[in-house]
Amino acid sequence: MNDLADRRIAEADIAAYMRSLGEAARDASRIAARADTRAKNQALQATASSLRSNASRILAANARDVEAARAAKHDDAFLDRLALSEKSIEAMARGVEEIVALPDPVGEISDLRYRPSGIQVGMMRVPLGVIGIVYESRPNVTVDAAALCLKSGNATILRGGSEAIHSNGAIAACITEGLREAQLPEQAVQLIETTDRAAVGHLIADEAHVDVIVPRGGKSLIERVSREAKVPVLKHLDGVCHVYVDARANVDMALAIADNAKTQRYSPCNTMETLLVHADIAKRFLPKIASIYEAKGVEMRGDAASRAIVPQMKVATEDDWYEEYLAPIVAIALVDSLDDAIAHIAKYGSQHTDAIVTDDYTNAMRFLREVDSSSVMVNASTRFADGFEYGLGAEIGISTNKLHARGPVGLEGLTSRKWIVLGSGQVRK
Amino acid sequence: MNDLADRRIAEADIAAYMRSLGEAARDASRIAARADTRAKNQALQATASSLRSNASRILAANARDVEAARAAKHDDAFLDRLALSEKSIEAMARGVEEIVALPDPVGEISDLRYRPSGIQVGMMRVPLGVIGIVYESRPNVTVDAAALCLKSGNATILRGGSEAIHSNGAIAACITEGLREAQLPEQAVQLIETTDRAAVGHLIADEAHVDVIVPRGGKSLIERVSREAKVPVLKHLDGVCHVYVDARANVDMALAIADNAKTQRYSPCNTMETLLVHADIAKRFLPKIASIYEAKGVEMRGDAASRAIVPQMKVATEDDWYEEYLAPIVAIALVDSLDDAIAHIAKYGSQHTDAIVTDDYTNAMRFLREVDSSSVMVNASTRFADGFEYGLGAEIGISTNKLHARGPVGLEGLTSRKWIVLGSGQVRK
Repeated sequence: MNDLADRRIAEADIAAYMRSLGEAARDASRIAARADTRAKNQALQATASSLRSNASRILAANARDVEAARAAKHDDAFLDRLALSEKSIEAMARGVEEIVALPDPVGEISDLRYRPSGIQVGMMRVPLGVIGIVYESRPNVTVDAAALCLKSGNATILRGGSEAIHSNGAIAACITEGLREAQLPEQAVQLIETTDRAAVGHLIADEAHVDVIVPRGGKSLIERVSREAKVPVLKHLDGVCHVYVDARANVDMALAIADNAKTQRYSPCNTMETLLVHADIAKRFLPKIASIYEAKGVEMRGDAASRAIVPQMKVATEDDWYEEYLAPIVAIALVDSLDDAIAHIAKYGSQHTDAIVTDDYTNAMRFLREVDSSSVMVNASTRFADGFEYGLGAEIGISTNKLHARGPVGLEGLTSRKWIVLGSGQVRK
Repeated sequence: MNDLADRRIAEADIAAYMRSLGEAARDASRIAARADTRAKNQALQATASSLRSNASRILAANARDVEAARAAKHDDAFLDRLALSEKSIEAMARGVEEIVALPDPVGEISDLRYRPSGIQVGMMRVPLGVIGIVYESRPNVTVDAAALCLKSGNATILRGGSEAIHSNGAIAACITEGLREAQLPEQAVQLIETTDRAAVGHLIADEAHVDVIVPRGGKSLIERVSREAKVPVLKHLDGVCHVYVDARANVDMALAIADNAKTQRYSPCNTMETLLVHADIAKRFLPKIASIYEAKGVEMRGDAASRAIVPQMKVATEDDWYEEYLAPIVAIALVDSLDDAIAHIAKYGSQHTDAIVTDDYTNAMRFLREVDSSSVMVNASTRFADGFEYGLGAEIGISTNKLHARGPVGLEGLTSRKWIVLGSGQVRK
């Protein structure tokens, strides 16, 4: 498995190769779906052990990838995402052990009630089936995603970035060892062993064998996958998150939240990009947040009304309201009412995460109900929109889809619920 | 609204027309989403009243459709589905009143829990947004679908069969009156006022303005919609439902269920099409069910093993196992084990509804867990797979999708859950 890149697959054979992966995944998914909690946990625990005992092998494979990426003149940020260390391998192993500790969602029965006909009707949580993961240069996704999918009873087909193929192969070998040790089918987690881009095209169109695609990576990857997929895609494209400081906000609280939501980290999707401020509080709030941002080197781009209060802001253009900066830049606009704030978010937002800061009960309740985002918050930083913070234990990603799972997606989002009926011979009249 | 068919829309304008419907629906959906329960119920109650007081107008419009369909040589079954009567209009009005009586799913908050960070995290049930309904000749779908979508806070764009356009227009006028009376936007329920097929193409591709498509009708309609849609489609294509009579089934119970599941009605999607019988019980069970079927004129098509017991069965071919007969025909196969029964269902079934008849606890539990269908039953007729029987009050359809709603889809399936966070100034460390 360490010489995957050397294994060449003829172009004409890619379709057949992908079909064979799909069929094997479908078969394995049936076994994974009925595997008991003990077997799944055993496979995960053995994977964690294998990651630790094969750390030097993984690092050697990773060194080949890093060397090739350096030769190909990838930038430092790219190399940073690609490079593994003793510490990051230990973190992967711990991550898998955290998933072992989570409750098994599969088979959970809820809402089982007697109906007038005498049947009992309820719902049972079941795996989705086969999950395709398409990701870029971070090798840790290989094991994080596979572990979440396996714990939730699904089979996985993994397609990592071609630049990480040796690292991913070495990590996948540890997962294979874990599955083998628990006597689960090795095909429950398969890594695509070709760097040919056509393979992704086949994967995301294979409705017969793949139930959902989770893309993990930059916007262009997610756009391509969404555009070409025939299989449903669990995804978010943008995180244009807002904090709205209401007229009746506590100024100190608003400062803490607007500061944290923008500056705690600049690159996550749940970082605030646009700050909306009610005109009635702007004179008390804006100069203070501006000095905080200035001290941290955050560039402010304001509309005319906010620049009238803080003249050193740059001019925001219409494009700024749509922008996910992922950088120390913030767009700032004044609004005259809660309605204007909600309308701004509906027009320019990405339905990811939006927060209001207010002490007004009615406005808090209206914001909660009327803002149609995957996470809506009152008096908290948008940075909390995260599987760990929400108590999911881990997340496979964040979804801004309307159907199925919205927001951080953990084990539950990798399952669905089927109906079950328990009878004692009832027939329909 | 009664002369819709006479209103011609130039082909070149269809795209613009559909975009304007989409934009109006999106705007109306925001108002519908925040409408309170009282307003939604008032609109529905007024719709029911309007249906009753406009019964003669609706019947006149329907008569035009029926006349045209007869002139176009449609068959009796078609005319039957198209024709309305005083009684069926009263049934529509009562159906709407039943939806008034259902609890409002919107805004329901669940699982609100404190996290170690001090924030409270939970989920709020919210409308999906804009729902496109594409249906065929039954005019009652116009009001049934619109009422379910409105109660769940969604806007609807309806596209009925061209043969029912006058009937649908007359019914839609009653809904418009209901919305107006409750001061809700009339655009919350819009009927496509052209019979041009291109309109459907625009509707199902309009990702910006439509959140989900529900096709209601025959297989060719659903196939076309599924193939061409860019918007997610809530659907089932086939209902190849199975009853498996286990070795330890109670024979009398198995007879009652196998009879009811096949013969109670032949055309619904939850009617059994294939009967699987464990070899150990076949000699006691098969001759008896065969006489029941023979007495009711049900044609039996069996595999070699079942024909060895009941020689008068016709020969089943491989195609029969895939077939949704929707007719007095049943395919019958013997199996040697529960595993074989589950494998048969996995290979040939449509993941709609499958039942086991057994007194064996382990087999019942295994069947429930391992059969991956939208409804899985023990000792009950597949005919129970239905929104009313399950207690949903009403259903917009049955879904065999893996994601989002599976099985009968009622008000809850027309909503999703977003995350809400209630804080008191928390920021992320």
